[in-house]
Amino acid sequence: MTLRENLEAAIRSIPDYPKPGVVFRDITTMLGDARAFRRSVDELVHPYAGTKIDKIAGVEARGFILGGAMSHQLSAGFVPIRKKGKLPHETVRIAYSLEYGVDEMEMHKDAVKTGERIILVDDLIATGGTAEGAVKLLQQMGAEVIAACFVIDLPDLGGRKRIEALGVPVRTLVEFEGG
Amino acid sequence: MTLRENLEAAIRSIPDYPKPGVVFRDITTMLGDARAFRRSVDELVHPYAGTKIDKIAGVEARGFILGGAMSHQLSAGFVPIRKKGKLPHETVRIAYSLEYGVDEMEMHKDAVKTGERIILVDDLIATGGTAEGAVKLLQQMGAEVIAACFVIDLPDLGGRKRIEALGVPVRTLVEFEGG
Repeated sequence: MTLRENLEAAIRSIPDYPKPGVVFRDITTMLGDARAFRRSVDELVHPYAGTKIDKIAGVEARGFILGGAMSHQLSAGFVPIRKKGKLPHETVRIAYSLEYGVDEMEMHKDAVKTGERIILVDDLIATGGTAEGAVKLLQQMGAEVIAACFVIDLPDLGGRKRIEALGVPVRTLVEFEGG
Repeated sequence: MTLRENLEAAIRSIPDYPKPGVVFRDITTMLGDARAFRRSVDELVHPYAGTKIDKIAGVEARGFILGGAMSHQLSAGFVPIRKKGKLPHETVRIAYSLEYGVDEMEMHKDAVKTGERIILVDDLIATGGTAEGAVKLLQQMGAEVIAACFVIDLPDLGGRKRIEALGVPVRTLVEFEGG
């Protein structure tokens, strides 16, 4: 079974969640499947083995699970990018677009140093609004964002192009239709 | 430098946060320190290498970072235990005590099977209210909770005894005074 087949089988699709007409792609079933989880992390870090990656930046909350594993595997540090108001020290903040309206995300001001090589990770890229905010925040702090990694791509929603427009390659493991 | 010394240096203490008189122990500086993070995960999983661990259960949100790394390292699955209302499928829920009042946490009903050997992880144990809720939730679903692991113990607050009273060994890496 290829990783793609493994993921297609292990990711749960929940129709009409969080609202009618939307199919939610639930990675918790994939995370609970030791083989699918392990293979996904291994595939995401594979191109960077033997290269210098300073930190993995994970987007709250599901990006924390994948990012923790990737950090350990690459012997890199981990940077949490969180919803506003959750980090205890001085932060930098950016607004980002959601399907309706905007929100803000932040990271600690001292979490990233100029020139550090960083990989961004989240579970899924849809419209790319969250990932775009996270990449911009990292770039504003002087980081070199080497790649943005996601288990799931919803290509119909165009997020990949939005991130590539920031000069950051996008890596994904499996695609689903719609959004 | 021992791991304990490494952690004492890498964990940031923030006085009067989130309120006057409390010292917040901030692990984000430790997570950003590749060596301290890697050593912490390695030490947490060390006793279980070569034993059968089905899943790591991580408590939202900082437990996700450590738990993701531990799952990958032990070739185990990962179970997210989240604040209520965040999981998309059918859940089981439990109330747990906070310093003031109560809240509820939940996990997917199908996340754990009877007899599965599970390790719980979070960044810190203080009064143990959150960890107690998580252990009870796992045990109610028929899991065998092999251990509860935390980077930081605040022994003055007595959480360890509360978890041990549920028949679950507690492992921590460094202690800080107060709470």
